[in-house]
Amino acid sequence: MPRFAILTVLGVCCLLIPAAADEEPLQGFTRNNSAVERQWEVKFRAIPSPQNQRDYMQRLSARPHNVGTAYDKENAEWILAQYKQWGWDAHIETFDVLYPTPKERVLEMVAPTKFLAKLQEPAVAGDPTSSQQSEQLPSYNAYSIDGDVTAPLVYVNYGVPADYDELERLGISVKGAIVIARYGGSWRGIKPKVAAEHGAIGCLIYSDPHEDGYFVDNVFPKGPMRPADGVQRGSVMDFPSAQPGDPLTPGVGATADAKRIPIKDNPALTKIPTLPISYGDAQPLLAALEGPMAPTEWRGSLPISYHVGPGAARVHLKVAFNWGTKTLYDVIAKIPGSEQPDEWVIRGNHHDAWVNGAEDPLSGQVAEMEEGRAFGELLKQGWKPKRTIIYCAWDGEEAGLLGSTEWAEAHDAELKQHAVAYLNTDGNGRGYLSEEGSHTLEHFMDGVARDIVDPEKNISVHERLYLHNISFAHSDHAGEDRKEIRDRADIRMGAIGSGSDYTAFVDHLGIASINLGYGGEDRGGIYHSAYDDFYWFTHFSDTDFVYGRALSQTVGTAVMRLADADLLPFEFTDFADTIHLYLKELKKLADEEREKAIERDKELDEGLFSATSDPRRPTIAPPREDVPPHINFAPLDNAADALTTAAQHYHDALGKAWAAGNIPSTTLEDLNRKLMESERRLTTQEGLPHRGWYKHMIYAPGVYSGYGAKTIPGVREAIELKHWDEANSEIGRVSAVLNNETALINEATNILEGTSH
Amino acid sequence: MPRFAILTVLGVCCLLIPAAADEEPLQGFTRNNSAVERQWEVKFRAIPSPQNQRDYMQRLSARPHNVGTAYDKENAEWILAQYKQWGWDAHIETFDVLYPTPKERVLEMVAPTKFLAKLQEPAVAGDPTSSQQSEQLPSYNAYSIDGDVTAPLVYVNYGVPADYDELERLGISVKGAIVIARYGGSWRGIKPKVAAEHGAIGCLIYSDPHEDGYFVDNVFPKGPMRPADGVQRGSVMDFPSAQPGDPLTPGVGATADAKRIPIKDNPALTKIPTLPISYGDAQPLLAALEGPMAPTEWRGSLPISYHVGPGAARVHLKVAFNWGTKTLYDVIAKIPGSEQPDEWVIRGNHHDAWVNGAEDPLSGQVAEMEEGRAFGELLKQGWKPKRTIIYCAWDGEEAGLLGSTEWAEAHDAELKQHAVAYLNTDGNGRGYLSEEGSHTLEHFMDGVARDIVDPEKNISVHERLYLHNISFAHSDHAGEDRKEIRDRADIRMGAIGSGSDYTAFVDHLGIASINLGYGGEDRGGIYHSAYDDFYWFTHFSDTDFVYGRALSQTVGTAVMRLADADLLPFEFTDFADTIHLYLKELKKLADEEREKAIERDKELDEGLFSATSDPRRPTIAPPREDVPPHINFAPLDNAADALTTAAQHYHDALGKAWAAGNIPSTTLEDLNRKLMESERRLTTQEGLPHRGWYKHMIYAPGVYSGYGAKTIPGVREAIELKHWDEANSEIGRVSAVLNNETALINEATNILEGTSH
Repeated sequence: MPRFAILTVLGVCCLLIPAAADEEPLQGFTRNNSAVERQWEVKFRAIPSPQNQRDYMQRLSARPHNVGTAYDKENAEWILAQYKQWGWDAHIETFDVLYPTPKERVLEMVAPTKFLAKLQEPAVAGDPTSSQQSEQLPSYNAYSIDGDVTAPLVYVNYGVPADYDELERLGISVKGAIVIARYGGSWRGIKPKVAAEHGAIGCLIYSDPHEDGYFVDNVFPKGPMRPADGVQRGSVMDFPSAQPGDPLTPGVGATADAKRIPIKDNPALTKIPTLPISYGDAQPLLAALEGPMAPTEWRGSLPISYHVGPGAARVHLKVAFNWGTKTLYDVIAKIPGSEQPDEWVIRGNHHDAWVNGAEDPLSGQVAEMEEGRAFGELLKQGWKPKRTIIYCAWDGEEAGLLGSTEWAEAHDAELKQHAVAYLNTDGNGRGYLSEEGSHTLEHFMDGVARDIVDPEKNISVHERLYLHNISFAHSDHAGEDRKEIRDRADIRMGAIGSGSDYTAFVDHLGIASINLGYGGEDRGGIYHSAYDDFYWFTHFSDTDFVYGRALSQTVGTAVMRLADADLLPFEFTDFADTIHLYLKELKKLADEEREKAIERDKELDEGLFSATSDPRRPTIAPPREDVPPHINFAPLDNAADALTTAAQHYHDALGKAWAAGNIPSTTLEDLNRKLMESERRLTTQEGLPHRGWYKHMIYAPGVYSGYGAKTIPGVREAIELKHWDEANSEIGRVSAVLNNETALINEATNILEGTSH
Repeated sequence: MPRFAILTVLGVCCLLIPAAADEEPLQGFTRNNSAVERQWEVKFRAIPSPQNQRDYMQRLSARPHNVGTAYDKENAEWILAQYKQWGWDAHIETFDVLYPTPKERVLEMVAPTKFLAKLQEPAVAGDPTSSQQSEQLPSYNAYSIDGDVTAPLVYVNYGVPADYDELERLGISVKGAIVIARYGGSWRGIKPKVAAEHGAIGCLIYSDPHEDGYFVDNVFPKGPMRPADGVQRGSVMDFPSAQPGDPLTPGVGATADAKRIPIKDNPALTKIPTLPISYGDAQPLLAALEGPMAPTEWRGSLPISYHVGPGAARVHLKVAFNWGTKTLYDVIAKIPGSEQPDEWVIRGNHHDAWVNGAEDPLSGQVAEMEEGRAFGELLKQGWKPKRTIIYCAWDGEEAGLLGSTEWAEAHDAELKQHAVAYLNTDGNGRGYLSEEGSHTLEHFMDGVARDIVDPEKNISVHERLYLHNISFAHSDHAGEDRKEIRDRADIRMGAIGSGSDYTAFVDHLGIASINLGYGGEDRGGIYHSAYDDFYWFTHFSDTDFVYGRALSQTVGTAVMRLADADLLPFEFTDFADTIHLYLKELKKLADEEREKAIERDKELDEGLFSATSDPRRPTIAPPREDVPPHINFAPLDNAADALTTAAQHYHDALGKAWAAGNIPSTTLEDLNRKLMESERRLTTQEGLPHRGWYKHMIYAPGVYSGYGAKTIPGVREAIELKHWDEANSEIGRVSAVLNNETALINEATNILEGTSH
């Protein structure tokens, strides 16, 4: 394919950012070592090939490869063979996990008219793998319980707690009903959880064309979006409340002889049967609903009047699953460190998929593999990373981060001792760098992003992201306005939640983690469907794999710098600034909750709700509630201030030390041991309230939001749930870990100053 | 109908708000006269009957009655007969006006596939008048020019100027194209005007189900909303730029011998052929569009991917009209004033409709008639209004406010001499009082609203509106927040724009005007269609006509108070406060325009637009523009301050005078003559820039928004259109009329104080 080859060559030329002779050394490097590192990095970034990524993807996505299939295992073995061929020390590690697959799925409307849902994604002409129906995993939600229910139907919008407050205002109960929620507004597993908490007995989740169909763009195969019969599979394991990984072996690796807890009443399983459906199947059900019109923001893009229900519509939902155990195949590949083999830089991306999984996860997996190949090339050229590099291709991510969690739990103690950082990727596409993670590495990632060239614009991906953030100021990125973005030295990194394999590393083990990827220019309406395949990806996403190459360059550069640095590039001023930001948000949240309650009670006194209730569409006044008390944020204020001071001292001391000349290697070793520990200091042994597997006190998935990060979650969720005593006690616990972090930073400063005096 | 009769009796009981013996006199009344007035008002408000309103509506809406039909004339004569029977001095006044009706209408897609638009509203089973198709006026836009064009199609969202800026960013031109705009976002006549300014050669306007179909509620006949084949007829006369009324006789009454200007190139006609269509007819056209996806906010609720076009779709539009003259029948009924027959209180509502017009205009017309009947009853009981009352049933409102404008122009001089105020209604429904008008009457209307009982809630309509405004704070009502609403003594009245028959009175003649109606609880998807009929109204709107009665009570009470007051209830502190509000808005607008330009130029310098343009969906950077200069608002600041001071002086002097005892009747007469003039002082002989028919310097329809009011329009539109010199000169002219108003108020204070000293 000559056109493609030419593009590649041109692309490589553009990627060479010339290094000035007198430029600032890289963060954590002596001037000499920085110059050497830069040379190796330039060599590295020239190696990843779009054509190779395309070939890998075609091979890996050729057949469905979910957990338990022969092709899943074949893929793992093939990936293993590549790493070995590239000179890595690689092996496969297996775990045996609970992995339910569908045995029976029935969804029908039994009254007022009959309708039997198709629950099937048809083959699409021109798309060769879409016809592999005999091998495809049918559409379902993994870890739904078995069930057979018939009941009236109620539409609950996204199915998050606020939606049930609205239903209450409308006088509609879901008790004894089957709910139908649309995808969006939260991670899918929240929907059956909240539905069950409100008394529903079944849960359907459908993709509305408003978020995931023709409203967004043309539908597949004419365009990238979800067609009428496309279904989003996905796990509904309640990992935010319990933990990710194998539900039978919480906290320990699911090795052959691990102790297992029962399936029955397992807290990670849903309480009610749950099934995902297409909008083709949802439309007749939604059209049959009566009752009040759904609130305006609840209405989607189907050509119907959205009512909340119930009405004459009765729905029969039956799901049954094979509750067997399946084997996971994690590929683990290593390059041992030449100087500090006991300091590990870990990087991963999963290889399993719901069906063919070209975008999710292979677009990230093939980038990781090209990094692997490139490091193999550098090794041949004489490069020797100081620290050990570990590349992982995880299995079983889709069902509940199984492969990464089991590996992290199985290697718990050694990881806590040796891990420097974990870098993750998953699906990748065209557009802007997306970075979220531990803010002690924010400044470091900012530096990496300045050295990567955007394949479309020939400016750095840092510059492009910065301009993008200005363009979308207010609407995302922590609500920053344009002035804040322009004034800040580093681009703010998003907080890490829980949507991919970094979860066990950061949330459970306290290993500084970053999740990276490109995206934002193409729309993906094939997420977790049979149409997420090679045909779709090469027609509608990063079709020439230049962002795949950019991802290899980005993550590979980060891995090299972490592995080669004289001093680990943890930095605490951005972290302290971020803590202050979160603290501001918490105070605002508490104030808003208080003001909302005061205003609501005033409106109740004024008779506002009764005066504005339309007798033909009556609404019920919200209940009167106690006005939230003021919360004592002083311990957090003090801890955040002390952190800021310590971070600045360390920063200044480090600047002085570098300026004074090279720091003795023993000092660097002492410092690195200290810095490696810095993220661990943000954890507690007891973990978060009510979910002790989550040890990190700054980042966690939301109990009622799922993937989305909750920052300072103990305090934030206590305020959201109006647990005022818990909010106060969690403030104490968070302040304590921050004070521990401050102590560590001060110790690091002392080590430095002891040397430089 | 016993059930209905019982409801009526109960309703009447609730309507009696007991008057305390020592209560504050009504505004403008001596203590004695106030008590007498209150007694008459209580009697008045007991008379209007829901059953009568229902009967009138059934009679008047029995057949289509647009201008030129026999039934339009019959209705006028029947209304006339009622007023005569009720003891009024009534007659019909006729005018001959240009009134185009469709001769030929063809809309078809000729490529890539064939599609012929239906352009027909089918009869609906169960709705008897929907089958009167032989009498119905076909769906069309009145005052579109004739035309026969074939061209590619481009979707332009609402078709307002900002939408064309977006199209430019997308690289799409409408030059030589037919545009398709959806209803909403502006008055419909703006759409062909702006399209023509951008080079389009034809204009289609369709009702998207998002604003006017199943997205909002069930469609007719199951629900109130527009069905797939329903069409919104309507005038596209360019009255905001030219003037309303007969396009051949601008500024003078269209009497038989009036001088007429030519039809050809008449500025009130569109520049391009224009046709309204249903969403049933629009869907195949929109679905055939290619080109970029429409911006997210442009997308409606049809089950398609909204593209802006163009593409292979070619559309043929042919419209031809009968350009004949038709006769208008305005019914004018009078009760002569017993003391001040030369001071006229005028009230009107039109009687013509596009088709059967149950809601628009008859729901308002039947309320007016019950006021007329009630006043007849009061006359029999001995009530004698001090001032002359004139009730009008206008013809030809729909095509361009024809009947009211021609009458106002024909009686120009006497109206300027005698008119106290004009009170208007149009369609009416269930819900909240809507009031907009001259702010010199804001405090007066606030008082009236406190005395009317809401038929659903048994609280005053004032209280209900106040609570509604709190509930919708920020989102409407001049952006007031809850605190402002709670702190202000009077409810803010909206500014008057131009969507009904008050236009000539306030904008051209400077007669203080108020437009009143109830609504907000029911949705009307039958606006200007064949389904706006008795069946629809009695199933989906104010089905038991209790809000019809409330409207009679509201307007009738206002008319009585204005007609009977010892001192005309004009008050200037609310007006001054409103001027300060508008001034604040203007400054904010100017600041925002400046900041936007500075920011845009900075982003151009940064390369933001090129960095964020997706190569697969390229966007074009906006042009660099000069940063707007600072504007000299000082003259307006000074004028507004002087107005506030004068208003407060008058208010205080009046308070003292009333407290001191009765004011001599000659003083009251002098004052009333002065006060009657107060709205006239807000006009200039030359009128607004570029549209001299509009004489009022504070309120006008927007040249680029239509019905919606532009306040201080000369200045506001100059800023919006970046005519900085004009903004400065208009500030001078507006300051001058405000200073004139201040002088008048000071003269009134002098009259008062000359007396009370």
